[in-house]
Amino acid sequence: MMKLYDCTTAPSPRRTRIFLAEKGIEYENIQIDLTKGEQMSDAYRRINPGCTVPSLVTDDGVTLTENAGISAYLEALYPEPSLLGTTPMEKAAIAAWNWRCEMGGLMSVAEALRNSSPAMKDRALPGPKKIPQIPALAERGLMKLGWFFKTIDRQLSSNPYIAGDTYSVADITATIVVDFARWVKVKPEEDQTALLEWYGRMRERPSFKA
Amino acid sequence: MMKLYDCTTAPSPRRTRIFLAEKGIEYENIQIDLTKGEQMSDAYRRINPGCTVPSLVTDDGVTLTENAGISAYLEALYPEPSLLGTTPMEKAAIAAWNWRCEMGGLMSVAEALRNSSPAMKDRALPGPKKIPQIPALAERGLMKLGWFFKTIDRQLSSNPYIAGDTYSVADITATIVVDFARWVKVKPEEDQTALLEWYGRMRERPSFKA
Repeated sequence: MMKLYDCTTAPSPRRTRIFLAEKGIEYENIQIDLTKGEQMSDAYRRINPGCTVPSLVTDDGVTLTENAGISAYLEALYPEPSLLGTTPMEKAAIAAWNWRCEMGGLMSVAEALRNSSPAMKDRALPGPKKIPQIPALAERGLMKLGWFFKTIDRQLSSNPYIAGDTYSVADITATIVVDFARWVKVKPEEDQTALLEWYGRMRERPSFKA
Repeated sequence: MMKLYDCTTAPSPRRTRIFLAEKGIEYENIQIDLTKGEQMSDAYRRINPGCTVPSLVTDDGVTLTENAGISAYLEALYPEPSLLGTTPMEKAAIAAWNWRCEMGGLMSVAEALRNSSPAMKDRALPGPKKIPQIPALAERGLMKLGWFFKTIDRQLSSNPYIAGDTYSVADITATIVVDFARWVKVKPEEDQTALLEWYGRMRERPSFKA
């Protein structure tokens, strides 16, 4: 059985958990408590020297440490239900929208949080290195996050899902963005009705609580 | 025939050109001169409102504007030679390494360049919006770029290609990083011999001059 090194409260491993839940894949869950710095321990460094979660250990004993790689692996091994698309155009739309959700959404929240939170002083980037915060980048992150919500609200006003007609990994990433944004006190605007309606549907999926 | 809106001197559309060349796909090339601001013109905004290159217009008339989407589309339509991997583990390694090359490599150079170059004053992010530069982010970008070269030198000291045994899209992205890094006066160190040897092989591929 695959093993997931996870931290229930963190956004990145939640992407993996929702992906696994949507595919219906069973796995062993091992918690790494980021609030106690367990990701920096010697024991965890031997599993993932980058000191990040998630780490997914496959049945062959290979450790995968990036959501990009984990999604590609799981989609290839368990093609149904597809989360990365089946036709060339579906694959294109899903990869492009997932990228936008990562760059415009996740990265924006991470910039805003890591460069402003007192708890993340000198931890402005993930991993073991000491990195000082840049307050101006926190502000830029908040601005980009506002644009991102506008972009997906517009997209969702004419599409049921982020990348078009079907649920995909882009919906997973965008769901994480909406929830993660609360960490920097940002929510979709009340007039972003397409985004809010979509988020309501995402909350009702069993995978939401994965 | 597909149409590529391109700018020969810019790094992002060069990723697309090398991808197309490695697949042996013919296309019509239309130059958008970024030095003249042609990407902001009304004519180009009608093709890509995001005002970025590349834009690939497919035979069906659909415009794809992100390398992530363009690669997924072309790989699905023209599977040979594969650039995104064939086995689940190859796909995982290539997607993870391509992500590292994008985040640790391309983004680091972009942060360093866009937040320091006098020519990019108020254009610290791609697209039509005015964004002030953050000098501290330029410095952080240079630091991350140094780490990235160390990471791929280590990877290449035990693998012939960035993601393992075969040439892939990760080699394309990393090639662009090495060339783009010159814009911020950064080169691999002389003792990064695995990286330098790999780059020499990349330069000899016909696609290098695509």
